[in-house]
Amino acid sequence: MYQTVRGMRDFLPEDMRKRKYVFSVMEEVFQRYGFEPMETPAVESFELLAAKGGGGEAIKDEIYYFKDKSGRELGLRFDLTVPTSRVVASKPELVKPFKRYCIDKVWRYDRPQAGRYREFTQADIDIFGSPSVMADFEVIQCSIDVFKALGFKEFKIKVNNKKILEALILAAGIPKEKTLDAFRSIDKLDKIGWDGVKEELEQREVPNAEKLMELIEENRIKEEFKAFDIGKEGAEEIDELFSIAKAMGIDNYLELDLSIVRGLEYYTGLVFEIKAGGKWSCGGGGRYDNMIELYGGRKTPATGISYGVERVIQLMEEQGLFPELKKTEVYVAPVNKDVRVEALKIATQLRSSGFCVETDVMERNLRKQFEYVNAKGIRYCVIVGPKELKDGEVTVRDMVSGKERKVKIEELANSIKIGSE
Amino acid sequence: MYQTVRGMRDFLPEDMRKRKYVFSVMEEVFQRYGFEPMETPAVESFELLAAKGGGGEAIKDEIYYFKDKSGRELGLRFDLTVPTSRVVASKPELVKPFKRYCIDKVWRYDRPQAGRYREFTQADIDIFGSPSVMADFEVIQCSIDVFKALGFKEFKIKVNNKKILEALILAAGIPKEKTLDAFRSIDKLDKIGWDGVKEELEQREVPNAEKLMELIEENRIKEEFKAFDIGKEGAEEIDELFSIAKAMGIDNYLELDLSIVRGLEYYTGLVFEIKAGGKWSCGGGGRYDNMIELYGGRKTPATGISYGVERVIQLMEEQGLFPELKKTEVYVAPVNKDVRVEALKIATQLRSSGFCVETDVMERNLRKQFEYVNAKGIRYCVIVGPKELKDGEVTVRDMVSGKERKVKIEELANSIKIGSE
Repeated sequence: MYQTVRGMRDFLPEDMRKRKYVFSVMEEVFQRYGFEPMETPAVESFELLAAKGGGGEAIKDEIYYFKDKSGRELGLRFDLTVPTSRVVASKPELVKPFKRYCIDKVWRYDRPQAGRYREFTQADIDIFGSPSVMADFEVIQCSIDVFKALGFKEFKIKVNNKKILEALILAAGIPKEKTLDAFRSIDKLDKIGWDGVKEELEQREVPNAEKLMELIEENRIKEEFKAFDIGKEGAEEIDELFSIAKAMGIDNYLELDLSIVRGLEYYTGLVFEIKAGGKWSCGGGGRYDNMIELYGGRKTPATGISYGVERVIQLMEEQGLFPELKKTEVYVAPVNKDVRVEALKIATQLRSSGFCVETDVMERNLRKQFEYVNAKGIRYCVIVGPKELKDGEVTVRDMVSGKERKVKIEELANSIKIGSE
Repeated sequence: MYQTVRGMRDFLPEDMRKRKYVFSVMEEVFQRYGFEPMETPAVESFELLAAKGGGGEAIKDEIYYFKDKSGRELGLRFDLTVPTSRVVASKPELVKPFKRYCIDKVWRYDRPQAGRYREFTQADIDIFGSPSVMADFEVIQCSIDVFKALGFKEFKIKVNNKKILEALILAAGIPKEKTLDAFRSIDKLDKIGWDGVKEELEQREVPNAEKLMELIEENRIKEEFKAFDIGKEGAEEIDELFSIAKAMGIDNYLELDLSIVRGLEYYTGLVFEIKAGGKWSCGGGGRYDNMIELYGGRKTPATGISYGVERVIQLMEEQGLFPELKKTEVYVAPVNKDVRVEALKIATQLRSSGFCVETDVMERNLRKQFEYVNAKGIRYCVIVGPKELKDGEVTVRDMVSGKERKVKIEELANSIKIGSE
């Protein structure tokens, strides 16, 4: 028997209905903010995937990398931001702000583990062209609306600023060449805790680790950070973001968290992370003002956020946030082959009235058809028999109550509508 | 500057809106018939892709084939039927009929040419578990509804039967071992014409080529075909299909075409091809009763159809079938930074009323904002100025007529609704 490729999954209808619900809720909110859909190919040149701002040469071990028959080095995209940045870099004519959304699959050659897959879905919104905190705020406001629309009651957008982090490192008296080492260790706080981070900092020979961790744990933008130009800038951006949020009455969703690092080379200013329950973040993003230029485009400020769809769905399941999702509502059952075309006509008529309708495509007897209707959880069964047909009638059976009633065919659509209330 | 991979494309918002419209129209029809969504990974084991009923070893040259870091042979799926058949084969517990739809990308390492890409989208519906012509009919009826819903006025579903073709080959007196050669040549009729096919048949040393071509050109199910068991079966299936279609009043969409071959090893009975204008078919399918068993599953009859989304979209563009598609309707323009939060509040209020709304995230002056609004073709601009705000008012500008009027903020949503009529 053939299997799925290791670390990848099939989505059967029950799962897909949930996924499609989540996608459509997200899309509706994105569109309300004027984000427009865009898609890029699954396959990109390895050169792009490895470009600075993207993954670097080391990415080869972490992605699906291959050559085509002409020897071109290719790979499956590992995120949606890199390909989108390629498009923005190569199309300076795009009207700014360029606001796009994308919900699509990405691939990473990670070690498969619980809740982590090699093929997974990201939902991204990004704004290209604006250096203003107004753009960062819009990305956050839209995200809050998305999580509200999905039904989450408690969630937080954690906020930090790369510039503050840099100033914090300076304030701790850590030499510049140890900055990346320090960031990498702090980034693991969620996974390995304070003690783990401390140990790592010492292993990486980052001096003043204690001081650094104190400043992060204190979780305040201290005056000493603002002594550095970069810290002053960062503090002003955070102030501006929180004050807009406050004026808009949504600052309760925001939370300063100086331990948020995210993408080491990638982000240049404000960074965000969404927590909606559970240990893991279910999305994050921030400002990446250098990327388009690194890809050969004009200098173009950019900010955006990416939601991990699988994690969002998992949390929604845990928190019981899925409504009842639309599926087949009516099954039209011919009692024998002689009336199958009549059954088809009735099914067709009900479909025209907007119902989701199935009929017998198996030529099964009524008992077998009922079994199917029950197995599929279809609410109404319209039984089409030759005797009733002569009177222009059919029998409607409510599969939940088991009650049956005779209905004139021309009144069927209305009758079921009423019945379902 | 980085490029897309050869033969692949980006879909910018203008294209994506069209694509999403087509997807949503298709999905709505699929769901009305009780087809359920399902998705499988982009990457499959090469073993599956090359399995009999799929592509065979030779497929390696036609797909994206690669090995992962553990040496596993993998490939990108070249269609949606093979992965779905894998699922059905490995899950005998799926309730039958199992009716699924899938709209997703597939990849082929074809030579790129006009209108042909290495990444493209298929939309598939399939019914697993039913040997009945009723299932084939449902697939056809649903397809007719899809093409009607997309706005096509003239289209045909061409119908043939693999069994009739086999009988026809026998009737022409062509030896069994030349059957595949004969099929392969006929299959090219669209591309190379009758003369080309004749030439090919002679090159492949298929005897009685003239007779074969006469029978196909005659395009009738002749009594002599029915002399063979297989021909009799095939003729009965075609009769049944056309008579159901006639009873349902949609036989005008069907057309017998004995030159339709499709998938050589793949199909086992009725085959379909959709023509909706232009030279190329924009979809096709048929019955493939052996595939699930070939993949190690229980014998499970199957029938389905696949639409080529890119071709459908191209034809819709040629025929002007796209309606105006929803995009940003209102832009809220703060006249200066002091009123930007007020503008944000008004934008938020309009979004709550269901409008797609943008506001200034660039901190631009009013003239620049108008340029943006015009460039994006946004209909209404709500101008937020400090003086009007004092009176609880804003100015609404209809960007088409250029007319402006003052509106109370609390009446804004209703006012724009009325204005857009």
